[in-house]
Amino acid sequence: MTAETPKTHNLRIDGSRLWSTLMETARFGATPAGGLNRLTLSEEDRAVRDWFRDACEAAGLEVGTDALGTQFALRRGRDMSRKPIACGSHLDTQPTGGKFDGILGVLAGLEVMRSLNDAGIETEAPLLLVNWTNEEGSRFAPAMMASAAYAGAFTTEEILAKRDAKGVSVGEALDSIGYRGCEAVGAREIGAFVELHIEQGPILEAEGRTIGVVEGGQGIAWFDGTVTGFESHAGTTPMPRRRDAMLGLAEFALAVERVALAHAPTAVATMGEAEIVSPSRNVVPGQIRFTLDLRDPASPVLDAMESALADAAAEIAARRNLAIALTRIWRKEPVPFDPRLVAAVDGAAEGLGLSRRRMVSGAGHDACNLAGCMPAAMIFVPCKDGVSHNEAESATPTDCAAGADVLLHTLVALANAPKA
Amino acid sequence: MTAETPKTHNLRIDGSRLWSTLMETARFGATPAGGLNRLTLSEEDRAVRDWFRDACEAAGLEVGTDALGTQFALRRGRDMSRKPIACGSHLDTQPTGGKFDGILGVLAGLEVMRSLNDAGIETEAPLLLVNWTNEEGSRFAPAMMASAAYAGAFTTEEILAKRDAKGVSVGEALDSIGYRGCEAVGAREIGAFVELHIEQGPILEAEGRTIGVVEGGQGIAWFDGTVTGFESHAGTTPMPRRRDAMLGLAEFALAVERVALAHAPTAVATMGEAEIVSPSRNVVPGQIRFTLDLRDPASPVLDAMESALADAAAEIAARRNLAIALTRIWRKEPVPFDPRLVAAVDGAAEGLGLSRRRMVSGAGHDACNLAGCMPAAMIFVPCKDGVSHNEAESATPTDCAAGADVLLHTLVALANAPKA
Repeated sequence: MTAETPKTHNLRIDGSRLWSTLMETARFGATPAGGLNRLTLSEEDRAVRDWFRDACEAAGLEVGTDALGTQFALRRGRDMSRKPIACGSHLDTQPTGGKFDGILGVLAGLEVMRSLNDAGIETEAPLLLVNWTNEEGSRFAPAMMASAAYAGAFTTEEILAKRDAKGVSVGEALDSIGYRGCEAVGAREIGAFVELHIEQGPILEAEGRTIGVVEGGQGIAWFDGTVTGFESHAGTTPMPRRRDAMLGLAEFALAVERVALAHAPTAVATMGEAEIVSPSRNVVPGQIRFTLDLRDPASPVLDAMESALADAAAEIAARRNLAIALTRIWRKEPVPFDPRLVAAVDGAAEGLGLSRRRMVSGAGHDACNLAGCMPAAMIFVPCKDGVSHNEAESATPTDCAAGADVLLHTLVALANAPKA
Repeated sequence: MTAETPKTHNLRIDGSRLWSTLMETARFGATPAGGLNRLTLSEEDRAVRDWFRDACEAAGLEVGTDALGTQFALRRGRDMSRKPIACGSHLDTQPTGGKFDGILGVLAGLEVMRSLNDAGIETEAPLLLVNWTNEEGSRFAPAMMASAAYAGAFTTEEILAKRDAKGVSVGEALDSIGYRGCEAVGAREIGAFVELHIEQGPILEAEGRTIGVVEGGQGIAWFDGTVTGFESHAGTTPMPRRRDAMLGLAEFALAVERVALAHAPTAVATMGEAEIVSPSRNVVPGQIRFTLDLRDPASPVLDAMESALADAAAEIAARRNLAIALTRIWRKEPVPFDPRLVAAVDGAAEGLGLSRRRMVSGAGHDACNLAGCMPAAMIFVPCKDGVSHNEAESATPTDCAAGADVLLHTLVALANAPKA
C-alpha cells in the first residue's frame, strides 16, 4: 500500500491556506452568532457553489454538475483509464449550522488538489472532488439525498419531486439557482470515496487523539412508543390506585439506558422526545408519546436491544397496570467501510505520526450511502465539546490541517496503488 | 348531639325526587356526551340559577343574592336569633364537566328542604342553602373565588375585576346575566357549613363504602422544576459522556413516587407536566421543564416531602452531572374541619346504618375556604372510577340519596342542638 514516492512522502497541505479558505467561504450564509445558515439550493448555497466552481477551475480541475446539482471536480491522472479516487463532502448546512460540518471535507479536498499542484505531483489514477447536494436534509427530506440517488436508492425523478415546507420542489430549486446539471445521476464513475469530516461527537477530544479512522456507520433503529395509563385527579387518587403514565415512562427511560450500557461501549440509546397528552399540573398523566433511537455497529446488537426493550416494556406495563406500545418505524443496517480503504487511512495517519483510534460513525454521511456501491471510508477530526449542528461548532486549525494531510496521503496512496 | 326527635329520627329524603331534580337541571348546558358545559356566569349558568331561585321560592325559602352572585336560600327556624346552619356547593361546571360535581351538594340541600317541608318539621336554628359562584375556576381564576371572598381572602372589588380569556370581567359577566346581587359579600351570617360532594377519587368505591366523613382538606405544595443537562447527538455521544436530562427526569419522577409512598397512606405526589425543550428524536435531551404537586393532610409531612425531594434532586444531579432546580410556587396549608361538625356527620351516617370511613378531601372545595371563618365539614359519596371533571362522571341514585340523608340528619342535629 505504500505507493508513495520520496517526493510525496514529506508532502503536507498548507494549513493556513486551508483555514483561510474555511473562513473565506464562511461568509456565504454567515449568522451573527458565528455560524452558518446555508440551506441546500438557497441563494447562499448558489453563492458558495459558484465560489467552489471558480476555485476548482482556478486549480485546473474540470468541473461538472449532475442532474441533482452535485458538483464534481476532476484532477487528471497519468492513467485516465483508471477510475478516479474521490473525496469530498457537502457545502450545505443546517439553518443554525457551523463552519465545519461537511465544509471541511470539501475544502480540504480542494486544499489537497492545490498542494499537489504546488508540488507538481501527478497521481496515477485521476482524483475527484465532490460537493454532494443536500446532505443535511433540513430543507428537503431525506437527508443525503444526492448520494442516495447516486447509489441507486432513489430515482432522479423521485428526488426532483421532493418539496420543501413552502412547496418548492428540488427541481424548481435547482433551476432557480441554475444548478440542474446535465450529467446523469450515477453516471460519473468513481473508484473509491474518502470523506473527511468533523467527528460530531466527543470521543477524539476526550481521548486527546487527532484522527478517527472510521470503520463504518452504525446501524440505527427508530421507534415510536406510547405509555397508556389512566388520567386521574392528583389530589384524590391514592398512590396505590394510580396508573401513572409518567412513572411507566420513567422506568422505561432508565431501562433504555440499561440496555445500551449492557452493550457497552458501542451501543447508544436515546429517548429524544416524550410528550404528555393533555398535561396538567394537578392531573396524573394518562398517556405519553415518546421516541427511541437505538444505534450499534452490529446488527445482532440492534436485535438484542430491541428484544430486551420489548421485555422491559412488558414487565413495567404488567407491574404498573399500564400499556406500553413500541413500534419500529425505521431501521438502517450497519454500513461497514472497505477494509482496504480503512487500512489506507490508518496507514496515512501512521505515516504522519498522528495519534488515532478506530471508531464508527454515529451520524449518517454521504460516504455511508456510497459504501454500498463503491469502496468508501472516512476520516474524523475532533470538534470542540463534540458539538455540531450548532453555530458554536468549532475545530482547531491544527486538527483541520492534520485531517487534510491524512486525506492527502490516503488519496495519493490509493491513486498510486498498483492497478487492481 | 342527638337532638333529634322520634319524628325526625326516621325521616329520609325522597331519593327519586332528588334524582329527577339532578337529571332535570342537567339540561342546562347538556353536552352530547352526557356531561355538562355550564361555565360560571354563562347563559347556561343563568338558566340554572333562575331554575334554582324559582325552586327555592316554591319550597318557601327566602332567596337573596350577594354582590358576587352567590345565591342564599333561607328556611326559617323557630329561633331566628340563631345563625343559620348552612349547606350547599356550586352549580357551575368545567367545560367538559359532569352532572354531579357541586350540583349534588346544592340539589341535595334543596331536597332536604323539601323533605322537611313534607314532614312538617321546623328546626330550632334556621337552615340556609347556598350556591357559591365560580367554584370551578375554568372561566375566571381563582377557583372557589366567591367563598374565598366571603371568608375575606379577597375584596369584592378584586374579584369583580378578574377577567376571562375573552377579557370579560366578573362584574360585566354578573351584569350580563343579571346576577350582581345587592347583599354585601360576607354580610350573610352563617353558623356552620356542611357540603355534600362526590369524592372525586376512587377510595369509597374501591372499599365498597357509601359515606366519606371528611376531616379536612389536604395541604398542597406546587413546584416548578427544570432538569438541565447538555443537548448532544444521539448517534455520536457515547453513553458515559452524556448529560441526558431525560434520564435525570426519569430518576426524579421515581424519587417523587418513593417519597410519597414513604408517607403512605396519606401523601400523594404527582409529576403532571414534563416538557423537553427542543425535542428531537435524534438529540439527547438537554433540558426538561416539569411540575410537581405534593399533598398531605399534615404540614410536617409536606415539609418532610419537600426536603426529601430536594435531597433526591441534589443526589441525582451530582451523580449524573446535571442541574436540577426546584422552586415552590404555591403552598396551601392543610384545612382541618370542625371536630363537632365532623362528629355530627359521623353520627348521622351511623344513625342511618351507612358504611363509612374518615377521610380527607384531596381536592379543594368551598367548604375548605369557609373553614377558616366558621365551623365547616363535608360529606363524600362515591363516584364511578373516581372520575370527575369529565363528562363520564357518574354516581348512583342510591349513593346520592344516602349522602342527602346524611346531610339532612347532620343539619337537623346541628340546627336542633342546644344553643351554644
